Amino acid sequence: MRSVVREMEGYAPGEQPEAGQRVVKLNTNENPYPPSERVMQALAGVSGELLRRYPNPTADLFRDAAAKLHGVTRHHIIAGNGSDDILTIATRCFVPPRGTLAFPDPTYSLYPVLARLEEAKALAVAWGRDWSLPVEALANSSAQAIYLANPNAPSGTFVSPLKVAELAKIFPGLLLVDEAYADFADDNCLPLVQRFGNVVVVRTLSKAYSLAGLRFGYAIAQPAVIAEMMKVKDSYNCDALSIVAATAAIEDQSHARGTWENIKAERTRMTAELTQLGWTVLPSQANFILAAVPSGRGREMYLGLKEQGILVRHFDLPGLQDKIRITIGHSHENNALLAGVKMLTAAGKAA
Amino acid sequence: MRSVVREMEGYAPGEQPEAGQRVVKLNTNENPYPPSERVMQALAGVSGELLRRYPNPTADLFRDAAAKLHGVTRHHIIAGNGSDDILTIATRCFVPPRGTLAFPDPTYSLYPVLARLEEAKALAVAWGRDWSLPVEALANSSAQAIYLANPNAPSGTFVSPLKVAELAKIFPGLLLVDEAYADFADDNCLPLVQRFGNVVVVRTLSKAYSLAGLRFGYAIAQPAVIAEMMKVKDSYNCDALSIVAATAAIEDQSHARGTWENIKAERTRMTAELTQLGWTVLPSQANFILAAVPSGRGREMYLGLKEQGILVRHFDLPGLQDKIRITIGHSHENNALLAGVKMLTAAGKAA
Repeated sequence: MRSVVREMEGYAPGEQPEAGQRVVKLNTNENPYPPSERVMQALAGVSGELLRRYPNPTADLFRDAAAKLHGVTRHHIIAGNGSDDILTIATRCFVPPRGTLAFPDPTYSLYPVLARLEEAKALAVAWGRDWSLPVEALANSSAQAIYLANPNAPSGTFVSPLKVAELAKIFPGLLLVDEAYADFADDNCLPLVQRFGNVVVVRTLSKAYSLAGLRFGYAIAQPAVIAEMMKVKDSYNCDALSIVAATAAIEDQSHARGTWENIKAERTRMTAELTQLGWTVLPSQANFILAAVPSGRGREMYLGLKEQGILVRHFDLPGLQDKIRITIGHSHENNALLAGVKMLTAAGKAA
Repeated sequence: MRSVVREMEGYAPGEQPEAGQRVVKLNTNENPYPPSERVMQALAGVSGELLRRYPNPTADLFRDAAAKLHGVTRHHIIAGNGSDDILTIATRCFVPPRGTLAFPDPTYSLYPVLARLEEAKALAVAWGRDWSLPVEALANSSAQAIYLANPNAPSGTFVSPLKVAELAKIFPGLLLVDEAYADFADDNCLPLVQRFGNVVVVRTLSKAYSLAGLRFGYAIAQPAVIAEMMKVKDSYNCDALSIVAATAAIEDQSHARGTWENIKAERTRMTAELTQLGWTVLPSQANFILAAVPSGRGREMYLGLKEQGILVRHFDLPGLQDKIRITIGHSHENNALLAGVKMLTAAGKAA
């Protein structure tokens, strides 16, 4: 047993309700709308013969569809078993043992876990004022790679592509932009891939395409970078069902875009409503909001809501203890959250 | 970029026919029979809602079914995105950078790739006479882990559980028994898990359950070992579709067993027929046979068959160059192979 594994805790995913338990689930950033009907049709067409055989090792059906969508070639794309698989592949590819992986902090808590698994240093660099990118500190970190979640989790804040380009230009290592939430933002860093050989943009179908259960993500980078990542991935890392379903999903842009518009409208409403109640809500470009409870009692608010069957996420970390992260759900789910908050406030609990 | 990645070639999967190309595909050890009808029914029942949400992180539905099948508990089992995922998890869990991963050689060519990715040494220990287990050499290797494919690929040969137990007893590190082909064998090493805390048995649904396209594998070991492997896996490494399908597959033992019996009967016939033609065929306990071409021209035989639209596997490695590995297919596919061999022999080509 490696000591690094024995001593670690592993990444803790958000809690899931038991089978049959009815909850308002606003804790793991799932899209509240169902996936495209074309996904279901594509899956219905899958034969036993397709399952019997090994899948295409590089998911070329999907790569071609994604290449068309993003105006790049198949060789700019690698597909993975969720964007976590892509992050694992990137870490194994670019971060050597005893190397350093840097990231603005707080952020997606998987990054330090990935670094530790490589026996590399996880270097957390504090965000600048108002969640601005600490360009100088990151660039001078002597890290082999920087991981930037943009929009960031759990803050929902966004760094402009112009600022990211500044970092890409002066940082000699790999700059991975984790765009899990980019489809809910006003802009993204995809154009940087053409300008910078050291930029890898990561996408997932979990949130924007309502397919968290499918496990499908991908990265876009220059072909020389993708070719190296291909060596590190498991031979057949995407299964036949997910390749077909993911392809159908990104080919139905109109369905997906409809869900993004609804979520963005609800995000605006929820931000306004909570602000009205005296909460401080960070400006979000993601499908969730990070909101500070007026009393500062984030954990009590999380527990009080949970008692009402409403799941949100609380992080017991410096700078986050007074806040809860709320996934933007259906309007009736969001209303349930607001009602719950008001009830707890009226009862003098938490808020 | 890590130099270890830049300098490596990556694992080369077996060749796949182009879409629409008709071939007799006996090169990647797929089961020739379709998966259970219950798998297709289970998939047809998957809703958009199941895809929208994150899957259960530990695939407990499957773990419970597998626990029942093998007479262990859920805590003895970890599920993965194919057994390659399980092998990656095990390597990251038990083989430290600058450590050693040992294996009898030749074997599954992924093992040295996994070791190199950990910046560990891949120690190939030659098989004993007649593919017997080199117990002493392996035990004295000072490796942190030994990977034993049993039945072995590409030889198809089998080491008795008694002999494996000998090794487990004296080797202080982890002994992983890769039982990808065990369902086609007369025996297996599952009982060793209860006796030895250092034994991990790996299974896959790719071959025995006709689900190579699904990517689903699992490991069985004592709960303390499984708990450590859980820390290393991606948070949601199995998708919602594959969990449902894999569970349905192992619950239909009668369908799967029927395919194993057919394959074993065809294996016996093919061994006899090729022996009759002057070939030397290793006694196989897997769903393939490794057969030496009488002329010693293995590569020419592989190419000659390929020209006829029959794909088999040839390994350009010491001790394997005179042989081809033939997956046991449907009887009509096996007959096509035999006819192809006879034609090449009559033409004075290859054989």
